[in-house]
Amino acid sequence: MSGSVTQIRVYWEDTDGGGIVYYANYLRFFERARSEWLRALGFRQSELQHDPGVVFTVVRVEVDYHRPARLDDLLVVSCTPSAAGKVSLEFQQEIRRSDAGGELLASALVRVACLNARTMRPARFPAAIAKELA
Amino acid sequence: MSGSVTQIRVYWEDTDGGGIVYYANYLRFFERARSEWLRALGFRQSELQHDPGVVFTVVRVEVDYHRPARLDDLLVVSCTPSAAGKVSLEFQQEIRRSDAGGELLASALVRVACLNARTMRPARFPAAIAKELA
Amino acid sequence: MSGSVTQIRVYWEDTDGGGIVYYANYLRFFERARSEWLRALGFRQSELQHDPGVVFTVVRVEVDYHRPARLDDLLVVSCTPSAAGKVSLEFQQEIRRSDAGGELLASALVRVACLNARTMRPARFPAAIAKELA
Amino acid sequence: MSGSVTQIRVYWEDTDGGGIVYYANYLRFFERARSEWLRALGFRQSELQHDPGVVFTVVRVEVDYHRPARLDDLLVVSCTPSAAGKVSLEFQQEIRRSDAGGELLASALVRVACLNARTMRPARFPAAIAKELA
Repeated sequence: MSGSVTQIRVYWEDTDGGGIVYYANYLRFFERARSEWLRALGFRQSELQHDPGVVFTVVRVEVDYHRPARLDDLLVVSCTPSAAGKVSLEFQQEIRRSDAGGELLASALVRVACLNARTMRPARFPAAIAKELA
Repeated sequence: MSGSVTQIRVYWEDTDGGGIVYYANYLRFFERARSEWLRALGFRQSELQHDPGVVFTVVRVEVDYHRPARLDDLLVVSCTPSAAGKVSLEFQQEIRRSDAGGELLASALVRVACLNARTMRPARFPAAIAKELA
Repeated sequence: MSGSVTQIRVYWEDTDGGGIVYYANYLRFFERARSEWLRALGFRQSELQHDPGVVFTVVRVEVDYHRPARLDDLLVVSCTPSAAGKVSLEFQQEIRRSDAGGELLASALVRVACLNARTMRPARFPAAIAKELA
Repeated sequence: MSGSVTQIRVYWEDTDGGGIVYYANYLRFFERARSEWLRALGFRQSELQHDPGVVFTVVRVEVDYHRPARLDDLLVVSCTPSAAGKVSLEFQQEIRRSDAGGELLASALVRVACLNARTMRPARFPAAIAKELA
């Protein structure tokens, strides 16, 4: 199980009146990194929905906010699978500033469940994904 | 064709690093007011999707931003249908501060099309809605 | 320390392509409820920023997603302070459907720190707020 | 006055329950492209706020929504300045799918004003930017 990193630029839409990135928007960044991790493995969620008919849903998040991200910052968001069950998967994720210092801004634990796209009940991860996670 | 007004409170999520409401978020406010206008007429979009199987989609917006809205502001958003065709509908909408002055913050013209929820092709407005618009 | 509840309607902006509320948006709902809890105590964050010059920032969240919220749902979001230190404060929060069943959709633990608005360093909660939390 | 293009990937956060990108989110995409256009000219808005002390604010948008963008789409967003005054600037912007067909999904006219960051009153564009626009 190997991870990936995704670069994300901070725009006005991400900031709030406090001049820093709004706390909910780090979850958008974490999700983009998980989507890119899947894409790097060759999977597109828009296709998985239809074949083999599964969607992923977040069932738990823990986020620690260490330092604020700001407008124009270039961030590096990591996505590392840390534990895999038959119907769920955990990721360790970090957001760091993309410069020499690489200061840690936020870290998260995210648990994702695999659901049958039609019944929305727990489903096994597709074999091709399970193989990558083995 | 009569209109409606909806009260909306400005939260941190709506503001940006400039200390004012982010320009895209006024479109969220305008859409909430259109949803409440429909709800006041007795229609729920989550039901219309299935029976009679239509969705509404915005095909054009014009927005003039007059004065900024800020954190904690209480806003009044109006929604007035101004022109109705067989498969599209135009709304005049305004956002004002909900106080004695009622200062105009933004105004918009929004054109909405009715689509068949399955084929996503233009469809006539449901008869019950067309009757309200007559 | 007594809590409060806030009603929130789910609009299109809150949903994602899976037909349910996007996981980051529950954090927007939790924050609205914390803002309304403060407002009910007589405090406006837009004023506290200037006098006495403090802002609140989230330093940790834990969210469990139990059941999805959907378009048109009316939600009840609770906000109950559960532990108060000199410079930080913890809330227990829940999101339930606002109907007879009151099904639990999401629950969260949110830790908020009080910062000096100018230096952005930890600051004591304003005395008026500390009194409410005693 | 030359334009620029920016590539943008569609994530879950951008879609709504209709399975397509939510109409307000195209304004987020247009703004990212304007920020990248400025960045390509060597300007960072986070710096311009302090030196020479100006911010840009959108005063009018017109958007035509031609075809929906969907999850996983890779988009190309253009930003072309089309008219420059002393205190305002107009952009023509388009969003196309980033493939051989390059289908046009949305087009916009966006008028931006330059404001003094302290007084929030109209200000001349910084000379360095005005030179680029000449």
